[in-house]
Amino acid sequence: MSKEIYTPGRHVAVLGGGQLGTMMATAAQALRINVHCLDPQADAPAAYNAQGFTQGAFTDESVVERFGRDAEVATIEIEKVSVEGLKALRDKHGVAVHPRPEALELIQDKGLQKEFYRKENYPTAPYQLWDSAEAIRSAFAKTELTLPFVQKSRKGGYDGKGVHVVRTEDFAPLDIEIAVVAARNPSGQTSTFPVVEMDFDPKQNLVTQLISPARISEKVANQARALAGRLIEQLDICGLLAVELFLLKDGSLWVNEVAPRPHNSGHISMNGFATSQFEQHLRGILDLPLGSTQQYRPAVMVNLLGEANATGPAVYRGLEEVIALPGVHVHLYGKTITKPHRKMGHVNIVADTMEEALALAEQVRNTLSATTKTT
Amino acid sequence: MSKEIYTPGRHVAVLGGGQLGTMMATAAQALRINVHCLDPQADAPAAYNAQGFTQGAFTDESVVERFGRDAEVATIEIEKVSVEGLKALRDKHGVAVHPRPEALELIQDKGLQKEFYRKENYPTAPYQLWDSAEAIRSAFAKTELTLPFVQKSRKGGYDGKGVHVVRTEDFAPLDIEIAVVAARNPSGQTSTFPVVEMDFDPKQNLVTQLISPARISEKVANQARALAGRLIEQLDICGLLAVELFLLKDGSLWVNEVAPRPHNSGHISMNGFATSQFEQHLRGILDLPLGSTQQYRPAVMVNLLGEANATGPAVYRGLEEVIALPGVHVHLYGKTITKPHRKMGHVNIVADTMEEALALAEQVRNTLSATTKTT
Repeated sequence: MSKEIYTPGRHVAVLGGGQLGTMMATAAQALRINVHCLDPQADAPAAYNAQGFTQGAFTDESVVERFGRDAEVATIEIEKVSVEGLKALRDKHGVAVHPRPEALELIQDKGLQKEFYRKENYPTAPYQLWDSAEAIRSAFAKTELTLPFVQKSRKGGYDGKGVHVVRTEDFAPLDIEIAVVAARNPSGQTSTFPVVEMDFDPKQNLVTQLISPARISEKVANQARALAGRLIEQLDICGLLAVELFLLKDGSLWVNEVAPRPHNSGHISMNGFATSQFEQHLRGILDLPLGSTQQYRPAVMVNLLGEANATGPAVYRGLEEVIALPGVHVHLYGKTITKPHRKMGHVNIVADTMEEALALAEQVRNTLSATTKTT
Repeated sequence: MSKEIYTPGRHVAVLGGGQLGTMMATAAQALRINVHCLDPQADAPAAYNAQGFTQGAFTDESVVERFGRDAEVATIEIEKVSVEGLKALRDKHGVAVHPRPEALELIQDKGLQKEFYRKENYPTAPYQLWDSAEAIRSAFAKTELTLPFVQKSRKGGYDGKGVHVVRTEDFAPLDIEIAVVAARNPSGQTSTFPVVEMDFDPKQNLVTQLISPARISEKVANQARALAGRLIEQLDICGLLAVELFLLKDGSLWVNEVAPRPHNSGHISMNGFATSQFEQHLRGILDLPLGSTQQYRPAVMVNLLGEANATGPAVYRGLEEVIALPGVHVHLYGKTITKPHRKMGHVNIVADTMEEALALAEQVRNTLSATTKTT
């Protein structure tokens, strides 16, 4: 494809049509890129605005192959897809696939991922691989395994699901959790967004607030960005790689988890940044030049989770009140049904100072909720 | 409608599906508003991304009535629509219509508009109304009319079309042209965007570059914003009112033209502002609180016009080169055919200083073009 002439209507096939797919479709519109999403749910968020939407199982090789074979590029918004389907698209149909299926395989298996980090000298938490819960119990009985530890499923985990802290105290001398979204294109250009700081709700094990830029030293921030940049290159991934890191009390960094796609920790880039992560992902996979990751103002992102006791058709309480606040941007995902703690949207808060942004975030959390009409 | 509960899926009917309709549809996605556009062209820009698209004549009363009767709110992206159709929607079907049809009628007729300004004491250029070209020629022959003057069609003008400067020198002691986009909602809240400065290509009589904030004194900027705020209130318009003004050499302001909708002079708000004009228009017509109009960084907007000698399927030359520049955002409208001087897109350039933004804008103008493959 000539770099000199740009032709609109480039066809991107996305496995998954959830919140990440729908926001990718929105970001595609300025450059008239056609995003087509595949999702098992007929009323998935991307059905609302993607240029094409197909109902079907992204875990089914033949469905994936049929869905993506006419695309210029195929990508994902969720990891648990058919890697065989992606390989078929690349090898049989000549579709560019980003992330590369082999890198996705590595990331799908937290055990393989850990082996990769060890081999390539990325610091991570010490770990052991186990085949079954029975094996863990047995080792624990024989004191081959001692408390405290964190148990993670090797496959299928998502947003903290599949992760269980068996005992939380002192398992790592943790300071805070941070994240860096890195981007890369097939021409070899690499870029990273500013480091963000993640605040967790320990009970739900979900991010409740995200702060950008992270309140850490420039030195640590540069180290984290350099690490993410090295990782995306070594994994040979195009598009985005979100890297979650533990910042330990001694200032060292441990890689926690990675995701080769737009990520919750990058949502903050949608307001008050030169380029959003969704536009950056599209630039990366289409081999367009990456955009500037400059942040214009301090920002906080708050996840909008389904209210604890509400299940049913989603409505939002307090939305008008919060969008009246300056620099407060609500992004609804358009999920028709709300469930307890389900991710229903997020709110980006941009302000002149971090103090202001944090105060507004507090107000947003106390005001806005995803609920049903009857509760 | 309760202000406390927000229900997604609110249905907005838009007469017109050109660039303004398609950008309105993009802006609607974060709050899951459903934008439906009506346009005579099957391949109009909004057909790409609006939640609903109907091919039909927005100048036809019965088409407009059928198209909009199930909507919560009807609005426009172009003035030359059937006002009778809009009145039927409001009076027979209880649809909220913004702008109000009577205000649209006033604005559709530049003669009535001028009378309104005179009655309400808004300074404008001196004018005379004529019924025909013959009447003008006859008055000129009798020296009732003397050079220089500007001839404007009372109806149907658009983007400088229908406007003819019969002789340009000294017809008004003009300094620069500026514009203010004002917004208002049915609850009575009013807001204005920063004043922008418009650079014209005198040959094409089209805006080639727009500078925000305008390089004028704060005093004049405040006067211009106050004038636009007063005008949108007096015209009792909800949504947006774009007000173009002449800034004379003595510092006084003349109202030139107004448009009760998103406007070319507001495109700059799409990048590096707290709220874009498209989101603001939706907030205004849906009676949501208006957003902050804070601008985070100096910005320049460049119109991307069809190359002089190219007519045919549109492609873009130099696009990859310009989106590699930091803070440069290309917005393509998705018009399938390019024609000489047709508005094919625009480019927003956001930088740390105005000098930088202007230099980048120059580079963009020299690099990017809308053309066809064969030229």
